[in-house]
Amino acid sequence: MTLLTDIASLDAIATLADSLPVADERAAAAATARQASLTKPPGALGRLEDLAIFLASWQGTDRPVITRAQALVFAGNHGVCDQGVNPFPQEVTAQMVANFETGGAAINQLCRVAGADLSTVALDLDRPTGDITLTAAMSDEDTLRQMRRGAEAVAADAQVLILGEMGIGNSTVAAALSCAAFGGDAAGWVGRGTGSDEAGLARKVDAVRRAVARHAGVRGAAMLAALGGREQAAICGAVLAARAMRIPVILDGFICTAATAPLFDADPRLLDHCLVGHVSREPGHARLLDALGKTPVLALDMALGEGSGAALALGILRAALACHNGMSTFAEAGVAGG
Amino acid sequence: MTLLTDIASLDAIATLADSLPVADERAAAAATARQASLTKPPGALGRLEDLAIFLASWQGTDRPVITRAQALVFAGNHGVCDQGVNPFPQEVTAQMVANFETGGAAINQLCRVAGADLSTVALDLDRPTGDITLTAAMSDEDTLRQMRRGAEAVAADAQVLILGEMGIGNSTVAAALSCAAFGGDAAGWVGRGTGSDEAGLARKVDAVRRAVARHAGVRGAAMLAALGGREQAAICGAVLAARAMRIPVILDGFICTAATAPLFDADPRLLDHCLVGHVSREPGHARLLDALGKTPVLALDMALGEGSGAALALGILRAALACHNGMSTFAEAGVAGG
Repeated sequence: MTLLTDIASLDAIATLADSLPVADERAAAAATARQASLTKPPGALGRLEDLAIFLASWQGTDRPVITRAQALVFAGNHGVCDQGVNPFPQEVTAQMVANFETGGAAINQLCRVAGADLSTVALDLDRPTGDITLTAAMSDEDTLRQMRRGAEAVAADAQVLILGEMGIGNSTVAAALSCAAFGGDAAGWVGRGTGSDEAGLARKVDAVRRAVARHAGVRGAAMLAALGGREQAAICGAVLAARAMRIPVILDGFICTAATAPLFDADPRLLDHCLVGHVSREPGHARLLDALGKTPVLALDMALGEGSGAALALGILRAALACHNGMSTFAEAGVAGG
Repeated sequence: MTLLTDIASLDAIATLADSLPVADERAAAAATARQASLTKPPGALGRLEDLAIFLASWQGTDRPVITRAQALVFAGNHGVCDQGVNPFPQEVTAQMVANFETGGAAINQLCRVAGADLSTVALDLDRPTGDITLTAAMSDEDTLRQMRRGAEAVAADAQVLILGEMGIGNSTVAAALSCAAFGGDAAGWVGRGTGSDEAGLARKVDAVRRAVARHAGVRGAAMLAALGGREQAAICGAVLAARAMRIPVILDGFICTAATAPLFDADPRLLDHCLVGHVSREPGHARLLDALGKTPVLALDMALGEGSGAALALGILRAALACHNGMSTFAEAGVAGG
């Protein structure tokens, strides 16, 4: 994946949308025509029809398939934890990565059920990013390096890419990125994350407010360096790499979706190939999805991260394709009404 | 399944709730305790946790499993079609049953993906029920016979039962049952079904209004005979048989859910073991779910029937159990915070 090796600066990412592949409208039209021929009332499969057509448009065929699904979970640590924004110690990030690697986490079970190959990428966990209330999270160089690591992790033969994250403190980062990208008061973007109490919540709101004020005026991919983190940068790199290879992406919850807000801010078209697997219980997520114009596949009151909601949504995509490719047409089945 | 052979009248069904099995609260408490020990923030798996605990309570174990899932689709024809409530001919019911049997319908693909054994039960398709705007749909005897057919179709070794239906005209029947059970004007319960135009929609509303007025005062399971149909009666029989065997049920969309309204009217506890797989695009369904106090698992803008939304929800249940049974505890994984 050479896409990001050519990028000299974060600002240059805004120009990528002009050269990246776009949805194949001809394949989408052919898939739409096939849906209309299948033995069901028009539109009766609802979102399943939309998903099949979406996959057709990115795979460039009227009969999309998912024979290989890849799941990537990026993990990072965050200097903003110094502000007391999270009740858990940062060591939990590495402990959970170990849990992913031995197969004991939710995402392991969900990837097994959904048929996705899971890899975890731990990003310098012993080196937390800068405290965004005081300084930039990362240098531009480090940000681009993490984006490249994310891009390089994408398997060229995947037909769908699930993205997830793990990082103690990163719901604060997500709120900061969302607030910086879309405005409004910090309190509207902050939720309880993994279990903040009232005092913790107040510290999160205050930290987000100060971080966004400190980095006011930073736009586009540069927001990753100012207010993001390593897993956020890696997610963006993976999103861009997938796009270059026409691989549709399923984003996960609030943190994963917010990680891509800098790309949207740079150019909304950069997320055209991205679905969002579910809407999280974190209150900022529904608001963020509105701002991004994305309709989640699932709404199961989850708030775990790790890619869990995206992996669940893969099951819905598989069902959508099973109907799209496996159903009989009215003509084949001898059913009236086609 | 002997449950319904003893029932001498439809009115007697109201008394069944006192003798049928109830949720095992001890198993539910043990499953809840296990959820709290798993490597995730408390409650972070949202609805997946509720579903695992629900299955535990009906299977009577803290470690529920689904090794056999059964899907039953009941099909019937309806005299109310004489009122011009459906744009398709009644022959389509039998054509779709043939499509189910040769594997070409949506439900075939969705059951394959979800790992459910599908059977179709065609109920006297050449003998439509009475036109409910003019007379009862069926005699009490015929209603009890169809309930027994539904009950007998339930596999004793199933750990979850998916129910679905097919029957041209049965969205009108669903609206009539819902309106009779929960009141309000007919127009609030009627939707476009498989594709009614404005004039067809007006005919449906008028038919439902007249049917409900004609059978005013009929309550409980007797509503199946007055306003229901054969597949509605069979669904109720299967629901009761499953309950007797502690098999949790996943109901499908508006028509399948409305079929159980007479049981709810007889005694709401009769549906305690039933989940609803999805909320349909049919406008009456969300209203019906409110009345029944049921929260759907999925919301995918579908309106197909056949058990399609229930089969999709089975995938979510499988994921819930994979997490419940497969995740490491905090102690096992050496993660702080348990």
